[in-house]
Amino acid sequence: MTARVRESALDPAIAARLKRTPDGLVCAIAQQHGTGEVLMVAWMDDEALHRTLTTGRATYWSRSREEYWVKGATSGHVQQVHEVRLDCDGDAVLVVVDQTGAACHTGERTCFDADVLLTSNGA
Amino acid sequence: MTARVRESALDPAIAARLKRTPDGLVCAIAQQHGTGEVLMVAWMDDEALHRTLTTGRATYWSRSREEYWVKGATSGHVQQVHEVRLDCDGDAVLVVVDQTGAACHTGERTCFDADVLLTSNGA
Repeated sequence: MTARVRESALDPAIAARLKRTPDGLVCAIAQQHGTGEVLMVAWMDDEALHRTLTTGRATYWSRSREEYWVKGATSGHVQQVHEVRLDCDGDAVLVVVDQTGAACHTGERTCFDADVLLTSNGA
Repeated sequence: MTARVRESALDPAIAARLKRTPDGLVCAIAQQHGTGEVLMVAWMDDEALHRTLTTGRATYWSRSREEYWVKGATSGHVQQVHEVRLDCDGDAVLVVVDQTGAACHTGERTCFDADVLLTSNGA
């Protein structure tokens, strides 16, 4: 299936390495610089990745609103970008950021704080 | 769209909180216990999550092979599970593991080691 790729100024050498969903997206994992906390998971198309790489502000594609979403644009909980890494098969990016305030819309620091399915401390 | 949910022994209380892709999957991020390294991204259906929670070995659904995949079953690079956390909207799990050897099939420690798109040390 051909991925739906929206027009973008993304470096063609990077674009050629992406393996997108049918909706033209790659998975984006935001991780806190220094502590390594996994903050949230979201999605990027080519243009969101381009904006993330060139503006220093993590920018995603909102699947529900079908629009670009600069993290923190309304909440102030911005993500300043330190590093962006593409995975071995080109379908996920790791975005290392400095997170201002809460990453999660619920007010939690990360989107993974509230629902622990299993813990085995010291195992 | 209704997700294609394969039969599974997953706790119904957990299954009810999952928001799956049309293929019945949630995104799974494996993170090294202690160091916080993000090792890899893969996918789980209900049964893969059930096996991960109950066997202590990270188990994924291979989209390409359409079969369950116990990480390290052939390579020996197993992932012993410490924690599993579900994100706020139920479409991603964070699996905190002890990774034996390389997480990436290329032999790199993580799937994000080889392709750095942006780095701004000290920014």
